[in-house]
Parts: sequence; structure tokens; C-alpha cells
Amino acid sequence: MDTASDREPRQERSRVTRARLLDAAVGCLAERGVSGATVGAVAERAGVSRGAAQHHFPTREGLLLAALRHMVESRSADLRRRADAVPAGPERTEAVVQMVVDAFSGPDFDAALQLWAAAASDPALRERVIPLEEQVGRAVHHAVVELLGADESIPGNREAVQATLDLARGLGLANLLTDDTARRRRVVAQWAVMLDRTLREPLPSTRSPRSTTKR
Amino acid sequence: MDTASDREPRQERSRVTRARLLDAAVGCLAERGVSGATVGAVAERAGVSRGAAQHHFPTREGLLLAALRHMVESRSADLRRRADAVPAGPERTEAVVQMVVDAFSGPDFDAALQLWAAAASDPALRERVIPLEEQVGRAVHHAVVELLGADESIPGNREAVQATLDLARGLGLANLLTDDTARRRRVVAQWAVMLDRTLREPLPSTRSPRSTTKR
Repeated sequence: MDTASDREPRQERSRVTRARLLDAAVGCLAERGVSGATVGAVAERAGVSRGAAQHHFPTREGLLLAALRHMVESRSADLRRRADAVPAGPERTEAVVQMVVDAFSGPDFDAALQLWAAAASDPALRERVIPLEEQVGRAVHHAVVELLGADESIPGNREAVQATLDLARGLGLANLLTDDTARRRRVVAQWAVMLDRTLREPLPSTRSPRSTTKR
Repeated sequence: MDTASDREPRQERSRVTRARLLDAAVGCLAERGVSGATVGAVAERAGVSRGAAQHHFPTREGLLLAALRHMVESRSADLRRRADAVPAGPERTEAVVQMVVDAFSGPDFDAALQLWAAAASDPALRERVIPLEEQVGRAVHHAVVELLGADESIPGNREAVQATLDLARGLGLANLLTDDTARRRRVVAQWAVMLDRTLREPLPSTRSPRSTTKR
């Protein structure tokens, strides 16, 4: 029979193996797409035996959805970490926009995009991908509202924050096939100017009667 | 030997067959992805024999790239058509933003997205997809600058127009798995307000010395 001290390192090894498989699945998805992210290919990339990989993830769909969940969690954790480091003062809006743009780019985004593309023609996958994406959207939206102190009771502010997420998604897509870093930096800076102005000085025609008392 | 009058209807039939194959390829890509868009599946959807399809497009890659080129051309033609109908006055900016957003949505966008996703893991495909995407980007950017009379010598204006295209790409992606029509309408309206304000009243800090003489 196992003693408690035997079980603990075994559980720890199992966690490490699982984490390596999930990281490898993200890498396979980003570089080779869904068709290239088989359990075997992911096991090889992770340096784990195929049998061990199948023990953790009997099906490819299970592995890929776990990888998406893993990305969602690591993006959320990254947001929380970066939120603490956002500067006060005039650079704040640009730092927050940059944070959002970073949340929708890099290998995690490229991997998620492969799953979205596959989900477009696979209703069962789509049903499972949508709630995870909504979770990311809500987490990022909430973080931006908090960090910028955006008053969503003022008409237009909620949509301006949503547009920031849509812009970030679009910039992620523009960066998929070519290195768009330099252009992206200029677009982020300009969007930050526009967003900041909207949040600080709403146009009279879009200002709600409650705005003066709510701020 | 063929007479000129024999050749003409034959050439016309050939053009019609080709156009049907390209439309069918867009549909297959959007609904089934690259792996579902085989020459055989496209021929079946187009109601064309497999032999005839292979005569026009011996390889799947050739067919899919021709479909992308076909989408690029039809998007550009659609832009030109809609540009003539853009209203003057205060609704103009929103109409232009809506036009851009429409250019990056629907079955054409969904089909293009499948090709982008496939190109991310296929360097040969990527090399051929990039110039076509750059062509669309330039055409849409140019149309927006013209239609809004945006003065790109004023710092920030060029990036504000680019951001509009990035937003449109992001909204297209957000609409891939769920029907995002209602939210998208509100984001477009707010974006138009922000873009209009930026183009009409650049912030003092981003206004170039030339702006007063150029406008």
C-alpha cells in the first residue's frame, strides 16, 4: 500500500507531466494547427511517453480543450500580475491598452486562433470553446474597467472598452503571419490617446445626466 | 477546327464554371476549413464534375489561392460600389466604419480566416497569402482616407485609420463562433464617434505644425 509520502511526489510528478503536456499542446497548436496537434505529437514535444500522455488525455479533443483552459487561466493570471504594475498618471491608459493587446497575442493567441478556426466547422468543439472565450472576454473587460476607472454608466464608455478588446483581437490576427510589432506600437499609442480622451471628456451628446454625480 | 463563334460560348461556359468553383471554394472553406475544401468537395458543391474542376484547378493549393484572390477582388469591388453610396454629413463617419467592418465579415472573412490559420503552419502558403492580404489592407485603408478626407499629415490620423481596420478584423473574429450583430452595431457607433472626433479635432499635443495649412 502507498504511504502518504509516496503519494505526494507521485502527485507532484503527475502535475508536472500534465503542465508539460499542456504547454506542448499550446506550442503544437500555434505552430502546426489542430491537425498537427495529435496526442502523439504533443507527447513527443513534451518529452513524455505516449502512454503517459494518453493516461492524462485519452482524446485529442480533451487535450486541446484542457490546453485552451490552461491558456485562459494563464492569461488571467498574467493580467492580474500586470495590473499591479500599471503606472499611475498620464501613461496609465496606454499601459492598460498595451496589456490588453498583449493578452491577445503571442503563442497563446496563435494557438487559440487555431482552435477557433477548427471550432467554426465543428459544432461540438464550438459549444465548448465559446464559454471559455466568454470567460476571457469578461475577465479582460473587467480588468480594463477597474484599471482605468471607466464609468460605464456614461453612454459610450462600455463600448469604448469593448472596442479595445476587439482592436486587440484584430491586432493579434494581423500579427499571425507577419511581424507587426512596430506598426502595432503606433496603433496602441494612438488608440490610448483616443480612449483616454473619451473616458475623461465624454462628448456632450453622449454624456448621461447621471455622469456628474457618479464620478 | 473551332470557329470564333464556337469558341466564344465555350470560353463563356468556362468562365462561369470557374466562377462557380471559386464561390464553392469560399463556401467550403468558411464551413469546413482547409481540410474540408478538397477539389472534390468543391466540385460537388459547385455542381461541376471532378474532372472539370481538376482541369481548372489541378491542385488544391491553386484552387484555394484563386479563391482568396477572388475574395480580395470581390471585396474591393464591393468597397468601390458602397463608397458611391456613403452619405454626406454627420452620418458619414459611421457609414464608412460600417463599410470597413462589413469588408472583414461574413463568409468571405470566415473563409479567409481558415486560410490564414492554415498559412500560420505552412510557410509556402504564407508567402502567397501575405501579398494578397496586404493588397486588401492597402485598398481599404486608401478608401477610408479618401472617404473621410482624413489628413494623414496630422500625427495620429494614419494610426486612427489603421486602428479602424484592426478593429474590423477583431470584430470579424468575434463574430466567427457566435452571432455578434447587436454588440457589433454598438461598438461601430462608438468607434465612429471617437474616430470622427480625432479626425475633426486632433488633440493639441498630437497636432503637427503643418496641420493648419494643409486642411
